[in-house]
Amino acid sequence: MNARNKGFFSEETSVEVVTARNSGTKDARLKQVMEVITRKLHEAVKEIEPTQDEWFDAIIFLTKTGHMCTDWRQEFILLSDVLGVSMLVDAINNRKPSGASESTVLGPFHVADAPELPMGANICLDRKGEDMVISGRILDTEGKPVDGAVLDVWQANDEGFYDVQQKGIQPDFNLRGVFRTGADGRYWFRAVKPRFYPIPDDGPVGQLLEALDREPYRPAHLHFILKADGFATLVTHIFDPDDPYIDTDAVFGVKESLLAEFRKINDRKRAKELGFEDWFWEVEYDFVLARK
Amino acid sequence: MNARNKGFFSEETSVEVVTARNSGTKDARLKQVMEVITRKLHEAVKEIEPTQDEWFDAIIFLTKTGHMCTDWRQEFILLSDVLGVSMLVDAINNRKPSGASESTVLGPFHVADAPELPMGANICLDRKGEDMVISGRILDTEGKPVDGAVLDVWQANDEGFYDVQQKGIQPDFNLRGVFRTGADGRYWFRAVKPRFYPIPDDGPVGQLLEALDREPYRPAHLHFILKADGFATLVTHIFDPDDPYIDTDAVFGVKESLLAEFRKINDRKRAKELGFEDWFWEVEYDFVLARK
Ligand SMILES: [Fe+2]
Ligand SMILES: [Fe+2]
Repeated sequence: MNARNKGFFSEETSVEVVTARNSGTKDARLKQVMEVITRKLHEAVKEIEPTQDEWFDAIIFLTKTGHMCTDWRQEFILLSDVLGVSMLVDAINNRKPSGASESTVLGPFHVADAPELPMGANICLDRKGEDMVISGRILDTEGKPVDGAVLDVWQANDEGFYDVQQKGIQPDFNLRGVFRTGADGRYWFRAVKPRFYPIPDDGPVGQLLEALDREPYRPAHLHFILKADGFATLVTHIFDPDDPYIDTDAVFGVKESLLAEFRKINDRKRAKELGFEDWFWEVEYDFVLARK
Repeated sequence: MNARNKGFFSEETSVEVVTARNSGTKDARLKQVMEVITRKLHEAVKEIEPTQDEWFDAIIFLTKTGHMCTDWRQEFILLSDVLGVSMLVDAINNRKPSGASESTVLGPFHVADAPELPMGANICLDRKGEDMVISGRILDTEGKPVDGAVLDVWQANDEGFYDVQQKGIQPDFNLRGVFRTGADGRYWFRAVKPRFYPIPDDGPVGQLLEALDREPYRPAHLHFILKADGFATLVTHIFDPDDPYIDTDAVFGVKESLLAEFRKINDRKRAKELGFEDWFWEVEYDFVLARK
């Protein structure tokens, strides 16, 4: 064995040979990332022992996934979602102190310029669906109310569509709103009960889910971004625990602490006071923000 | 902790939660492959701890790689090549008994219908480049000649281009040929010395190589496919060990046993006998085929 020998590729040397080749890069973070990717990728290949045909199937799957991506469709994010990678990256970047509300994925349907509304506003502009009232407090980890916290909420309608998916059918900014707390940290607003919906499943990721006998659905949820001076921004959902897909969220977004209670209230007097018909859904949920 | 709790996602449970979701598939091989991919991918993410921006950079890199793929350009195969994955899959699928010639990657430039030629033919149809004669034997692992072995050879010209990359510039089937051995297992043919060439580096993979301060070049080589009844097909190269890129093949294709000797022969008489000018390159290389 001469010195050059060390540089040649074999099953045994594959990781060290490739990593040695990448070792000249001046970008220290890139070097580290490539070292881990190379090692884990080669470990996976050695454990799977793909045939040449299986390797080529993987190449074609990635190619189709790339070809599915456009300015308005991101199939690689969907792939990251259904493999649990998006939630894992979210978890790693949002480790919270004990007692703070947990985060979950942002999702693709946030809109930056939703209107700021007075507390109690009804964000359901077309009044389609089952009436719902949501209230609660925004607290710090010591249980004190957060003054001036900004709550940005968005949700699907009772058919499982966001306004941006149904332009011309739903009014603009339907089921979206921004609310600002006072000194009591309280928020409340009116809406309709959201419905579960499928992630886009007409591409390679949908085909993968089908091959895996998996459902493409996300259980019913509301999205929130909560911001307040001095606190870490919280991106999260609250979920309906009675949704048929609560245990099989296609993107793994559900956490136990994010299960709210959706109570059906048969109280005509309260309904009328809220501007609703005979009955409505009531949700109470407190958010706890972590200090920066 | 209730039973449902086990199904929720966290940094600690991420692999088991995603794998449990994929466990319902009826395709046992797909289930196994997804289990390994999920585990190794999550291990990589946990070790790298990507920021949200780094995760998005990876999404965009994969998207650009997909968008670069066309019917005549396969950027994901290039990515597999420069990460050493193609060579690893080749190695796993071509484990050889001791003494048999080693395999290397097929590459994208093989053409199925190259002409069968008589031994000694000159496959360089335009006579551009430095003359070369190659000879050797095709043997079994006991050193006995293989009768009726078919040798399919193709190579770049002295500017580093294959005929299919220079249609209208190089003649069709330039530097390609198929030869069939007799009872002595011997082969010989004439050609020109090939030159190193870059893999296509005008896409995302080329940008990655540049970010890694890596060269895009493959050292000079000839490609071979060897077939004979009762033997495993051998896909391999022979390399010029004096090539400037012999230690930095962009796709990791070089193995020590595939280094041939390219001898410069200053022998006017032999040159004339071969139909060459004053001097030429001589290569002798024996291939050893493994029985099926
Ligand atoms: Fe959503
Ligand atoms: Fe080549």
